[in-house]
Amino acid sequence: MAHLVSTSCSLKISATNKVFPQRSNQGPTAFPSSWALQSSKIPYGGLISRQEKHQRKFIVQATAVPLNQEAPTQAGSSSYQHSNGSSKMQRVMIIGGDGYCGWATALHLSNKGYQVAIVDSLVRRLFDHQLGLDSLTPIASIHNRLRRWKSITGKTIDLYIGDICDFEFLSESFKSFEPDAVVHFGEQRSAPYSMIDRSRAVFTQQNNVIGTLNVLFAIKEFGEECHLVKLGTMGEYGTPNIDIEEGYITITHNGRTDTLPYPKQASSFYHLSKVHDSHNIAFTCKAWGIRATDLNQGVVYGVKTDETEIHEELNNRFDYDGVFGTALNRFCVQAAVGHPLTVYGKGGQTRGYLDIRDTVQCVELAIANPANPGEFRVFNQFTEQFSVNQLAALVTKAGAKVGLDVQSISVPNPRVEAEEHYYNAKHTKLIDLGLNPHLLSDSLLDSLLNFVIKYQDRVDMKQIMPSISWKKIGAKPKTVAA
Amino acid sequence: MAHLVSTSCSLKISATNKVFPQRSNQGPTAFPSSWALQSSKIPYGGLISRQEKHQRKFIVQATAVPLNQEAPTQAGSSSYQHSNGSSKMQRVMIIGGDGYCGWATALHLSNKGYQVAIVDSLVRRLFDHQLGLDSLTPIASIHNRLRRWKSITGKTIDLYIGDICDFEFLSESFKSFEPDAVVHFGEQRSAPYSMIDRSRAVFTQQNNVIGTLNVLFAIKEFGEECHLVKLGTMGEYGTPNIDIEEGYITITHNGRTDTLPYPKQASSFYHLSKVHDSHNIAFTCKAWGIRATDLNQGVVYGVKTDETEIHEELNNRFDYDGVFGTALNRFCVQAAVGHPLTVYGKGGQTRGYLDIRDTVQCVELAIANPANPGEFRVFNQFTEQFSVNQLAALVTKAGAKVGLDVQSISVPNPRVEAEEHYYNAKHTKLIDLGLNPHLLSDSLLDSLLNFVIKYQDRVDMKQIMPSISWKKIGAKPKTVAA
Repeated sequence: MAHLVSTSCSLKISATNKVFPQRSNQGPTAFPSSWALQSSKIPYGGLISRQEKHQRKFIVQATAVPLNQEAPTQAGSSSYQHSNGSSKMQRVMIIGGDGYCGWATALHLSNKGYQVAIVDSLVRRLFDHQLGLDSLTPIASIHNRLRRWKSITGKTIDLYIGDICDFEFLSESFKSFEPDAVVHFGEQRSAPYSMIDRSRAVFTQQNNVIGTLNVLFAIKEFGEECHLVKLGTMGEYGTPNIDIEEGYITITHNGRTDTLPYPKQASSFYHLSKVHDSHNIAFTCKAWGIRATDLNQGVVYGVKTDETEIHEELNNRFDYDGVFGTALNRFCVQAAVGHPLTVYGKGGQTRGYLDIRDTVQCVELAIANPANPGEFRVFNQFTEQFSVNQLAALVTKAGAKVGLDVQSISVPNPRVEAEEHYYNAKHTKLIDLGLNPHLLSDSLLDSLLNFVIKYQDRVDMKQIMPSISWKKIGAKPKTVAA
Repeated sequence: MAHLVSTSCSLKISATNKVFPQRSNQGPTAFPSSWALQSSKIPYGGLISRQEKHQRKFIVQATAVPLNQEAPTQAGSSSYQHSNGSSKMQRVMIIGGDGYCGWATALHLSNKGYQVAIVDSLVRRLFDHQLGLDSLTPIASIHNRLRRWKSITGKTIDLYIGDICDFEFLSESFKSFEPDAVVHFGEQRSAPYSMIDRSRAVFTQQNNVIGTLNVLFAIKEFGEECHLVKLGTMGEYGTPNIDIEEGYITITHNGRTDTLPYPKQASSFYHLSKVHDSHNIAFTCKAWGIRATDLNQGVVYGVKTDETEIHEELNNRFDYDGVFGTALNRFCVQAAVGHPLTVYGKGGQTRGYLDIRDTVQCVELAIANPANPGEFRVFNQFTEQFSVNQLAALVTKAGAKVGLDVQSISVPNPRVEAEEHYYNAKHTKLIDLGLNPHLLSDSLLDSLLNFVIKYQDRVDMKQIMPSISWKKIGAKPKTVAA
């Protein structure tokens, strides 16, 4: 099993004046400044099969002061009352809560009165170190993020640091936090990363599939009523020549009719891992009565949410590189630094897109309206469709408004995908639940461009071009930076 | 990565008088009698994540005498000429060639003039030890099987012992043998096994998915022309309320039409692992131009093939237990020992079935008519459909003919599955290639019953009842026998 992170610990941020960790069965000791690094500084080379012998587990309970003493303090999460007066807060565990979508969601739900715990191995930060990449925005450590959130809002977010592929760690987190809902962002989420070399392909499928299996077993064992909200991807469907429905399609064939899972045609080892998850989850809903919602998300753009813009230490990450960067965010960075927009191939590739403010809204809607026991519910989570060429045109136009002369170039497509195709994907179920979309407007693009310009000195031009080829992936480990 | 078997070695059976292994860079040494056991005697408890530090790799080249000196001997496989006079034999690597279908296929293809290598970790034999199970038929060690085959026919089958999840081992096997086709039976193939506990569920998916990913990378890296013949299962489709097609279905939806992968609804972690494989393979065909045939096999019955019945040391295994036994074989054993046939639930569960003599024929047809580069071809590999109740009636009738009073009982269904459903699965593609089916006749059932009666003293009554429940599977390791 993949254990990229060899230590597992839980960290509780609450209201005392200094940061003191407690090792189990030990008194308080000074919080080692290198602790977060220690939990993930395993060299990549041996990550998949050679780490077990180094594995140590310990539980750390740390307490932290609200940095802003004027903020209200809470005695403890268990006694916290919901702002609407209801006596029980919904407890939401966010796996992968230190990542791009996860962090925004954690803050949003905490702000809305949910009791939130983040479960994360922090391995996403390790990937950046290993590949020589960095977020455009400076991002604080998860520990400082949570302290800052607490200091400003008085709200506590629990933190469990470890790998969900380690079932013992996951079990302890479940038993400790007792979630009513689990939001599972905790997967390797980059298609190019999964196509770097064999070991990253294997890591991606193993990590994602086994991690999700463990979550399913944890729910069955420790919280059968718990609602799983799983992040899937629109990429599971591929680009069929018929309309894409939400998870299921009714087929009439040789005079008979059935509603069946929508056929899947994923086009990277990453996208495939999500297809595998979907099948596994569907089975456990049927066999064990698990209640699950699969959010087949489109490409997310933007960076600010109401909560992350409160303070710079709450910044979300913003990836623009060829591995983790997604199309629109990457184009904005290219426009800001005067690099031509890199259109892969013909640019007719059409996908669903959404603002990160809608990601957090969609997850909240899914939690607030849970699936029934045994139900495997699939929502297509995006708000608009664009082709790559349409995106490039939009960024070019917005660039002109803020005084940028934006050019586009076609670069050889590193992926294997149709560059001109039919695409019409349904996305009404979240709207029906009340989603109020932030559509991609001129004003949003202006604001996004201005945000990027603010950080343009941090742009590393070497990260902009695609360097990972779907066809050239080899069995040999790729040991250099991306 | 799962390394159930911690040592990897290749064994070459050729024509000298004693068994001498050669460790790399060492002179010949005595062949340790416990060597086969050593390669698999890792305790199950820590199999998934704690074995790496014990891992040792060595290449053993052993030579063995044809036990029957009257048989022709061959100087070496490379100089062997095809019986039809063609100058190049097709080289077929059979992963999982020590198992039920794999062993029969290896002998069949060797007999037909193919140059065969078996790649196997022998872990299937370890499962029997761990679960307290045994084949009805006594089976020889793989080493003795191959020596006997060589002694009788003069034909050499190469042997590579190791785990295909270990890519270094698989690479060496590929580079050494240079296969024209790979037949991949090398997966954990029992649905109940995958439902014993969390660790077996995880093992099954990890072992099967990662093993197959490694095979795909090995083909890409070392033999792009190599044709992958992968054993899938009819269980991938589940029991939809429409006809089951062979891999793909043409769907007209909202006025548009496309031919898409047939929707999958697998119902165990094992069946799901095959669904995952199918998606992964389809992607690599498209992205890398791999040529692949997925054989979605039905339930196999029978035990004798032309080759295995030549000598008792060539016996195939015959599983009748609740974990690895399949319906018809299990019923024959129950009939022979006077145990009521155990019908799960209502008995209306309908599946495709085939004689093991047709398994070997189908594989040969797939190899002889390879898929094109980039083609992902799916054949439904079965010859007839039966419900469980129909099978029970057939066995009851055949039993009466040989003087057995056969009863049936309905036992609570340990699985989660529809017990009455529509089922109509197409299976014409292998027929079109020339498959000449052995249909389930009275005479076959008579012969199968008589075969079982011959070994009835070896029946362990404790193995007959199902003991693994789809609903009761837990996260805790199940440490007792099946």
